[in-house]
Amino acid sequence: MTDPQEAIDAEAAIRAKERDARVGDRTAGEVQDGIPFIGAGPGDPGLLTVTGKELVEAADLVVHAGSLVNSELLEEYCADAERVSSIGKDLEELVPLMRDAYEAGRDAVRLHSGDPAIYGAALEQMDALEHEGVPTYLVPGVTSAFAASATLRTQLTLNGVANHVAFTRPRGKTLDPEDDHIGEFVEMGDVTTCIYLGTHAVGETMDRLLEEGHDPQTPVAVVYHASWPDEEVIEGTIETIGDRLEAAGYRASAMVVIGDAARKAGYERSYLYDGWANRGSTESEADD
Amino acid sequence: MTDPQEAIDAEAAIRAKERDARVGDRTAGEVQDGIPFIGAGPGDPGLLTVTGKELVEAADLVVHAGSLVNSELLEEYCADAERVSSIGKDLEELVPLMRDAYEAGRDAVRLHSGDPAIYGAALEQMDALEHEGVPTYLVPGVTSAFAASATLRTQLTLNGVANHVAFTRPRGKTLDPEDDHIGEFVEMGDVTTCIYLGTHAVGETMDRLLEEGHDPQTPVAVVYHASWPDEEVIEGTIETIGDRLEAAGYRASAMVVIGDAARKAGYERSYLYDGWANRGSTESEADD
Repeated sequence: MTDPQEAIDAEAAIRAKERDARVGDRTAGEVQDGIPFIGAGPGDPGLLTVTGKELVEAADLVVHAGSLVNSELLEEYCADAERVSSIGKDLEELVPLMRDAYEAGRDAVRLHSGDPAIYGAALEQMDALEHEGVPTYLVPGVTSAFAASATLRTQLTLNGVANHVAFTRPRGKTLDPEDDHIGEFVEMGDVTTCIYLGTHAVGETMDRLLEEGHDPQTPVAVVYHASWPDEEVIEGTIETIGDRLEAAGYRASAMVVIGDAARKAGYERSYLYDGWANRGSTESEADD
Repeated sequence: MTDPQEAIDAEAAIRAKERDARVGDRTAGEVQDGIPFIGAGPGDPGLLTVTGKELVEAADLVVHAGSLVNSELLEEYCADAERVSSIGKDLEELVPLMRDAYEAGRDAVRLHSGDPAIYGAALEQMDALEHEGVPTYLVPGVTSAFAASATLRTQLTLNGVANHVAFTRPRGKTLDPEDDHIGEFVEMGDVTTCIYLGTHAVGETMDRLLEEGHDPQTPVAVVYHASWPDEEVIEGTIETIGDRLEAAGYRASAMVVIGDAARKAGYERSYLYDGWANRGSTESEADD
């Protein structure tokens, strides 16, 4: 097996010269040859996509994200498959495992939590596999921020209140302070800021926002394990959420939502359902 | 029927005083009493969630987003239901339609494109219905940006390249210039900027980015109808995409992705699949 970083660099060099023909030939959601990298959704087995479920049900080998994927989903859809948790394993273990399965004619799938495009590390596994001659593709899923907004009975965009959404993570050992944009997103005033991977740092993040002079009354909601049976919601403001979260006990895998959309207050109606955001435009369509 | 804006304001006033008990009692994805507001996903019927499909299949009345929802999905899952397009209808028409169905004991569902939390106008319908005594809830879905990233075979976040994601829309008749943050997101350098509802304005938006001094070579990909049979991809840069899009003919319902993630170049591997973004933290878990 090629060194994974070399494989990644080699794939990047190929892409710099020519486009992957499959980009034009295959549509998103289409079942293709090779190993699908499937978004398992936020947790609830019913929030997996129809195609994702069919692929998982048909699989002989399911490499999954361990405790990040709801075990109920695995029990319901692939109890009889060989199931391998990726937690604690590196590319050098995972790539040969999936390659060998593919080459032996077994149906292998890789199950990531949420959507693989958001804070997943799918692409490096895909590049390493492709470099070994194993085709791969992505099957999108529901990200945890959407489950959190469903729990909160709100939208992440709200007419006149929240025109934009940011998916972000806070500074830490893998993100330099200058790449932490949470303060900038909050400063914009009409962005709903969704913090992934940052529950351990909520207190510090909020202290920083207060020091930077952001409105202490800005609503913040934290949704732990959105759509799981043990889902929990803690609500507050930039000023109060840190203490409330600490009092509730530390929680990994929670989604932090900052902004007025978290409290769904003060929005304006859109009148006509031909796409509110476009009501000034006759040229284009919009989600409605 | 109460005037919809009064209904919305009344619901907001109630929420300011007390939390909706269902926020703590019900989890995202749970089937509840009332009318579900379902994310239909990006287009492909297989990218609807399992729960969404079950609800649509069981429905007597499906109020859907017209041409924004793939007709194949409607044919496949609810050919026998009464189907009503919301295009061109306002709250005054839609709310009584859904209320009467609910009160008559019919199973009514509301099908929005993508995820209802992202540029949907679900909440105002929900508030108006709740005010009329009809319970409602959200069923999350896959947003078109995730289908676009699956088409492009990339992630929207990429280790060391794209640490954050913005869902945004450009200035226009419903968004003031000062609330257009596209330049700010691009300026951050490590944000993947996904423009919804803005295909009609790509040329202007790119011209503005050039005037503001952003790197003309910044990759831009436009995915039209991601996951639909007529899906198309046009790739370029801030400098070239406007002309290429114009040459290809105007396309509504396209997703514009700006940033290095669109070309998935130069990212770093994460080594251990216990959540790359957290590898400095022993306290929390991450998508892997």
